[in-house]
Amino acid sequence: MTIFDIEVAKRFKDLDPYDHVSNATFLDYVMEARVRVYRQLGLSDRGVIGQVVVRQEIDYLRPISFSVSPLVARTWFSHLGTSSFTMQTQLIDEGELAADAKSVMVCFDKESRSSRPIPDAFRRMIEEHLEQE
Amino acid sequence: MTIFDIEVAKRFKDLDPYDHVSNATFLDYVMEARVRVYRQLGLSDRGVIGQVVVRQEIDYLRPISFSVSPLVARTWFSHLGTSSFTMQTQLIDEGELAADAKSVMVCFDKESRSSRPIPDAFRRMIEEHLEQE
Amino acid sequence: MTIFDIEVAKRFKDLDPYDHVSNATFLDYVMEARVRVYRQLGLSDRGVIGQVVVRQEIDYLRPISFSVSPLVARTWFSHLGTSSFTMQTQLIDEGELAADAKSVMVCFDKESRSSRPIPDAFRRMIEEHLEQE
Amino acid sequence: MTIFDIEVAKRFKDLDPYDHVSNATFLDYVMEARVRVYRQLGLSDRGVIGQVVVRQEIDYLRPISFSVSPLVARTWFSHLGTSSFTMQTQLIDEGELAADAKSVMVCFDKESRSSRPIPDAFRRMIEEHLEQE
Repeated sequence: MTIFDIEVAKRFKDLDPYDHVSNATFLDYVMEARVRVYRQLGLSDRGVIGQVVVRQEIDYLRPISFSVSPLVARTWFSHLGTSSFTMQTQLIDEGELAADAKSVMVCFDKESRSSRPIPDAFRRMIEEHLEQE
Repeated sequence: MTIFDIEVAKRFKDLDPYDHVSNATFLDYVMEARVRVYRQLGLSDRGVIGQVVVRQEIDYLRPISFSVSPLVARTWFSHLGTSSFTMQTQLIDEGELAADAKSVMVCFDKESRSSRPIPDAFRRMIEEHLEQE
Repeated sequence: MTIFDIEVAKRFKDLDPYDHVSNATFLDYVMEARVRVYRQLGLSDRGVIGQVVVRQEIDYLRPISFSVSPLVARTWFSHLGTSSFTMQTQLIDEGELAADAKSVMVCFDKESRSSRPIPDAFRRMIEEHLEQE
Repeated sequence: MTIFDIEVAKRFKDLDPYDHVSNATFLDYVMEARVRVYRQLGLSDRGVIGQVVVRQEIDYLRPISFSVSPLVARTWFSHLGTSSFTMQTQLIDEGELAADAKSVMVCFDKESRSSRPIPDAFRRMIEEHLEQE
């Protein structure tokens, strides 16, 4: 099992009128972490392996304020199906757990535009890092 | 039961490198619909009744492309608890259901910064529009 | 000369901690107006005619607050050069001029990735709508 | 004279359908650099000294692509007036100058909501770091 601790910089622009990061922006952080995990694994984020987000869940535990220090998006693969896989991300801000998110991705064939089994090389790579739920 | 069909304008800026609205941006649309429902009900979005989003779930059913015509965010109150309530939002783009989202809000006391029962007037107003799950 | 009055919907998400639309977001509105003018003129925003923004200027005259009514982005072509053209956009919010922006675009050849003269059909279309500075 | 080299992390979400950072987002980077310079100088970004952006200019020199390494926003104070001051920011991405921006800020009195001379302590601090144009 592999935990990816990805630093994600906050921006002043992320703040809403309550002086907290807007709830929708939390998923920007989750996306950023996911893209950076893909990069670490050598997965192109737009390669021949099409994968799309089909579901996300997020629990907001604490508001996030602006600071120049980045938050940590603790990310791992939590499930591997035939054509789908799940990544979980904890947003840890100033040492405190601020949100807990789960993203389900499905592999799809860009030509037929339908879902397809995860390619073998990609599957093996996820298996290597997997923490089954 | 009341269905609020809120028009939300897409923006070219919402698009990602795949030429689709970014998955995180779907929650911007959901937020926009929620704020506009609050406005229709005469609820201030920043009044003395503090309410925060504590959980969101979203299923992505179809990609959303850019068009100058707005999408419809079909929104309703689906649950009313003691201190929390739930709103559901279907994003309907070009006549097709593109996403299904659920947002759970909790009322809180801005001074003590802890959750509190939904104020009576607000409760009655939600009850009037409620579609129990 | 043609004035394009483009309605651009504000979003609650555009607000910053001062409860005003963030200064960077004003250019989102300008972009949105430009894309919608292109659409009205039948110009694809990603067609074979490559055009890129090479310069923008914006004067902020009044803060923009959130409201459910859209602002008006009053837009026109103000200059036509050999390979470049200029569009001006006034952001009019609640009947008041809030900002004045100028965007300079350059046509370029997507293959050689260098600037090129504006194609004739596009040039004639701009000429038809032009308000020379 | 002081040059502030501020690292600003790019995000995958900043990309547009052309796979480049959206032109409006460049000003997000400029804003982020400005806020971080304020923080380095101990200036609150929302303190009693009200300051608002009244004008921005930006020249786009090269497109910015996504990468996990941050860009550098090279920022300095280039002008100091009675009630206004100017900051310049060069966005340097992967070692190349990608954009050149100028932002003019005006101090204002939050109660009378009109412009006012820059407070002495703030003025002295800018003077210390100033590179006159």
